[in-house]
This record gives sequence, C-alpha cells and structure tokens, in this order.
Amino acid sequence: MTSSGTTGPLDPAVAARLKRTADGLVPAIAQQYDTGEVLMLGWMDDEALHRTLTTGRATYWSRSRREYWVKGDTSGHVQHVKSVALDCDGDTVLVKVDQTGAACHTGDRTCFDADVLPLGK
Amino acid sequence: MTSSGTTGPLDPAVAARLKRTADGLVPAIAQQYDTGEVLMLGWMDDEALHRTLTTGRATYWSRSRREYWVKGDTSGHVQHVKSVALDCDGDTVLVKVDQTGAACHTGDRTCFDADVLPLGK
Repeated sequence: MTSSGTTGPLDPAVAARLKRTADGLVPAIAQQYDTGEVLMLGWMDDEALHRTLTTGRATYWSRSRREYWVKGDTSGHVQHVKSVALDCDGDTVLVKVDQTGAACHTGDRTCFDADVLPLGK
Repeated sequence: MTSSGTTGPLDPAVAARLKRTADGLVPAIAQQYDTGEVLMLGWMDDEALHRTLTTGRATYWSRSRREYWVKGDTSGHVQHVKSVALDCDGDTVLVKVDQTGAACHTGDRTCFDADVLPLGK
C-alpha cells in the first residue's frame, strides 16, 4: 500500500456501501457528461472503482478477458472521468465521462446506437 | 399465447440476441428521454422486456421481491416507454422513458443524486 492515492484499496467507507453481484461486481453506466448520451455499460470490482476514482480514467473489469480494462488503452477512445456516483442502494455506479471518439468497439458513438427494438411486439 | 401483442413470449429474434446473467437477467438503464438524465438501473428477464416493449410501461424483475414490478404501480411514479435498445453485445437494455415525478424511492429525481463519490481518493 502506498500513499499515492492511485494504488491500494478502495476507501472503506465506499466499499461498505457497495452491494456486489455474486461475482463481486457492480454494473457501471458510462454517460457523456455534457450531452447526456448513455455510452456503454461496464462492470467494476472494488479495485476498478478505486482506479476510476483516483486515476481520472474509467477502468472496468472485463468479464470475458478476466482482467482490468482501462478504456481507451488499446483503441485510444479514452474516457476522462468527470464524476462518479453510487445509486440509492449501492449496487450501481454512474460514471460521467468525456469520451474521446467512439465508445463502442464497433465504431459507433454509443453501444446503444445499432439495435433499437420495435415497440408493440 | 394470444395475438394481442401484450402477452406471450418475447420476439424470438430479440430473445436470440440477449445475453443474460446466470440468473437469466439483463441490466436495464432507464433514461429520461428528453433531458438525458440517467434515472435508475433495474433488471429484466425476457418477460419483463416483452412487457416493456408491448405495454408502454417500463417493467422490471425485482431481485429482492422475486416478482415483476411495473414501475409506478405503487408510487404513481410511472415510466412511459419512448424507445428501447439493446447494446452491441446484447447484454444491456437502454430504456428511454418519460418519468412521472421521482424515479427514486427516496423521493429524489434519480437514484444517483444522493451519493456522489469524491475523486482522487
């Protein structure tokens, strides 16, 4: 543990409020801070949330690759963190970010652009 | 099964694209359609998504009560569905709604108003 603020455990007062899935994760909604666009949903464990709060870069836990994932490290499509909030029962995180380029790996601005479902059926 | 469009199973073409948790659920983000506010996150199984698409009222699966939950049936704080989209890998739903009153059971407009986390620690 160091005093740098970028390593070490999540603030215990925050950790105590988190309600995690059986996998130890909480869903994290990424929203563009100025336009309000919902960009994507990722997953965070305590360490990913800690890194998101302390490094200024949105950091997720990849369930498929089973590793931490600093958004944009590969693609350049970085998410600069503007604010982070827990919901009323501590089981969801809302991360307001400034998204560079496309949030979606398909090249779309958001992960919700391509598959709008028909209503009424 | 009926032909009314309000009962019966989810459209098989949609069901085939859904990637569910081990509990058979997908997280559903509710967003105010005009202001862009992220209101809350709920959970849907296939039937809740079907009802959301066909009834015009956002309907969730309550993990704590283990029952369907038509948002606003008790509180009057109804969510009228404007659009529904799946994300790029079919594991999250974005529901744009017109929220009557408070989305949060605490009386706050959104579930993310009360617990903003400090950055940098």
